[in-house]
Amino acid sequence: MKMKKGISLWNKAKKIIPGGTQLLSKRSEQFLPDQWPAYFTKAKGVEIWDLDNSRYIDMSIMGVGACVLGYADDDVDREVKKAIDLGSMSTLNCPEDVELAKLLLKLHPWAGMVRYARSGGEAMTIAVRIARAYSGKDKIAFCGYHGWHDWYLSANLANDKNLDGHLLPGLEPKGVPRCLIGTSFPFNYNKIEELEDIVQKNKDVGTIVMEPVRHQEPKDGFLKKVRGIANEVGAILVFDEITSGWRMNVGGIHELYGVLPDIAVYAKAMSNGFPMAAVVGKGEVMDIAQDTFISSTNWTERVGPVASVATIEKMLKNDVPSHLCKIGNFISKGWKESATSAKLKIDVAGIPPLTTFAFDHKDNQALQTLFTQEMLKRGFLASKSVYASYSHTEDHVTKYLENVDEVFRTISKAIKDGSVRSALKGPVAHAGFRRLA
Amino acid sequence: MKMKKGISLWNKAKKIIPGGTQLLSKRSEQFLPDQWPAYFTKAKGVEIWDLDNSRYIDMSIMGVGACVLGYADDDVDREVKKAIDLGSMSTLNCPEDVELAKLLLKLHPWAGMVRYARSGGEAMTIAVRIARAYSGKDKIAFCGYHGWHDWYLSANLANDKNLDGHLLPGLEPKGVPRCLIGTSFPFNYNKIEELEDIVQKNKDVGTIVMEPVRHQEPKDGFLKKVRGIANEVGAILVFDEITSGWRMNVGGIHELYGVLPDIAVYAKAMSNGFPMAAVVGKGEVMDIAQDTFISSTNWTERVGPVASVATIEKMLKNDVPSHLCKIGNFISKGWKESATSAKLKIDVAGIPPLTTFAFDHKDNQALQTLFTQEMLKRGFLASKSVYASYSHTEDHVTKYLENVDEVFRTISKAIKDGSVRSALKGPVAHAGFRRLA
Repeated sequence: MKMKKGISLWNKAKKIIPGGTQLLSKRSEQFLPDQWPAYFTKAKGVEIWDLDNSRYIDMSIMGVGACVLGYADDDVDREVKKAIDLGSMSTLNCPEDVELAKLLLKLHPWAGMVRYARSGGEAMTIAVRIARAYSGKDKIAFCGYHGWHDWYLSANLANDKNLDGHLLPGLEPKGVPRCLIGTSFPFNYNKIEELEDIVQKNKDVGTIVMEPVRHQEPKDGFLKKVRGIANEVGAILVFDEITSGWRMNVGGIHELYGVLPDIAVYAKAMSNGFPMAAVVGKGEVMDIAQDTFISSTNWTERVGPVASVATIEKMLKNDVPSHLCKIGNFISKGWKESATSAKLKIDVAGIPPLTTFAFDHKDNQALQTLFTQEMLKRGFLASKSVYASYSHTEDHVTKYLENVDEVFRTISKAIKDGSVRSALKGPVAHAGFRRLA
Repeated sequence: MKMKKGISLWNKAKKIIPGGTQLLSKRSEQFLPDQWPAYFTKAKGVEIWDLDNSRYIDMSIMGVGACVLGYADDDVDREVKKAIDLGSMSTLNCPEDVELAKLLLKLHPWAGMVRYARSGGEAMTIAVRIARAYSGKDKIAFCGYHGWHDWYLSANLANDKNLDGHLLPGLEPKGVPRCLIGTSFPFNYNKIEELEDIVQKNKDVGTIVMEPVRHQEPKDGFLKKVRGIANEVGAILVFDEITSGWRMNVGGIHELYGVLPDIAVYAKAMSNGFPMAAVVGKGEVMDIAQDTFISSTNWTERVGPVASVATIEKMLKNDVPSHLCKIGNFISKGWKESATSAKLKIDVAGIPPLTTFAFDHKDNQALQTLFTQEMLKRGFLASKSVYASYSHTEDHVTKYLENVDEVFRTISKAIKDGSVRSALKGPVAHAGFRRLA
């Protein structure tokens, strides 16, 4: 059988792009090594066509959560193409920078100023710079996943397992300056005593960074307690809303918990796939950005703010979060029902618009790989997580769940037969960060 | 007189965006405080329309050097809009990532692998991460301007004048961790003895970063000597070609000097205003990126690589650099002739496609401000620098130079009369980084 074009191109890509792609979560090895289609020619709504013109329904990560409205959204793209025709960059600034700032501040009545970047990791690094500048203290306590920059990865310099529980195990800090050892300290979600311990041992923690919600709900007033500690020690509280924002509500998920940060950071869903990121914060705190140099040419182009204004306005107009919750709940319920019916134990976690399941089984990773393999045969891009989008219809989910039901039975049978590994036509998917051969 | 809309919006922007814009070089205060139009509605070729629909010819920074083909280039935009219609982001990767990598490697026969980002400062930080990871050493010697990130600004922690000669004076490192003191050391261009001194005093310099050419030509084999020192001490040589690339030739300016880096970094002109950046390097060096975590969602969208492939192909097809050199030389020659004729002393510096002048006068900054003010009245966006673009015609330059000739006479007269300051209708432009009121 001839190798599929996408698989062949992926094998070539790995020779000239270290890691094959710019994002760990888009490596074929994270889904289905040697079998994943890897590349697309066209994407519209929740449909994706690969290089062999095979069509799939995306019931997985929807551009890693970026395409919350669906692929190639007509309303956003119309505004973007208009902006391109009118010039997307010039010596002068685009007024949409200010329009977006006003819109973000309207959605964040506690905030007074806004800065932009074009990627999430970069925006987090701006937030950290501002927090360090304002607090006058270098040390950071954090919880969750916050990207590739030095301030975050430095936590793994002293102990390379420090970041393991924060979404991705195995993050390598090679090339992060050794002098940053002891500047960043991780605490686990819902473990307020860990944060208490950090600030007690380190009087110079000036920044607390966290994803307000990811896999778990806050327990025992966890977020309020974090806010209290920040106030007590005079630390700036930064909520990384890059993954959690724009899904449960139009804005940051923190709004639903009634706990306000000093700075909230957004990217991904805010612009439906066009590169954009925003740092939204209290005026007094953000204003310190005037006393430290933060500047980049590509942050001044027009596509990002135009896409973002159009995306947010569509979210508001159509109450997109309600749809995302409905779709996500429908999926989670279906997973549970099919698992029960197939006598599989699964754990379901996450907020409804970003729902995740894991097999309660020692060979979960192989089972997940088999799930992805069997769903792919049936025309679905599917993995352990679904980022719901506004383009997912009940019909998409119904068809997806019919197939999940069959595949769960196949997996259950394979477990009983001891044939899970032999049913896989390629290697087991990678669970964390690992060198590609 | 009613305040112009752009000036009014700029004043509002400064209240909700610290610094008003994301780039120091796009602040009105860098050109003409209280008078600069600040915002555009439309830009095409070298024409820009402001919020009051006044039309200007851009004889200044052309999107800070990003729009090398001109604003809203039809050929690039056609490809970008096609990519948007086909979906600019999905769960799968875009094949244009690989297409661009192949094209960049063809233009850099010494290189073997490529990584991407979406802004220049971020791409430089990837290059530094890779160089530190490969060399196993944290210290950096550098020359020139390299953006806002910690590794660079840390040079100003110990001595806040360290960066003053490297393009912009006054860069504030507030919020950069103090432990980075003594990790980055600046050397001046054409002062090889300064680099020699740094590597002699610091045995653990593993990275040398520089702009291969900016204001001056290398003297006495400066670049070759830097390369020699890098080889001798086992340091990775990184050329920051974000400003110098894609102007004198299609690729990095280093090619013209026959000195090869280990890594070359590009942004700005490579994609004609759409956010894109690339790190191009020797395969052996770049491959270490597999052993350190560098990953971001927004680096996987499709517009950046599509715009970049289209821009580079147009540059190659139309020999854009020849045109940029012709335009730049025409301008420099005109400046000198008009200065002589007006009995003004000016210094002209820079490569032809990025030509700069300064008045040889103690009040240069006020004279520059007057120049910008008087040229604006005549319908030109004009400052001390011109980034030539493929859309600049001889006719544009001829008309520009006729006006320069008149304005130089006005300035000469104002100097004689001692009326420079009184001729200014607003404050003098800022020369470096400074807080905005």
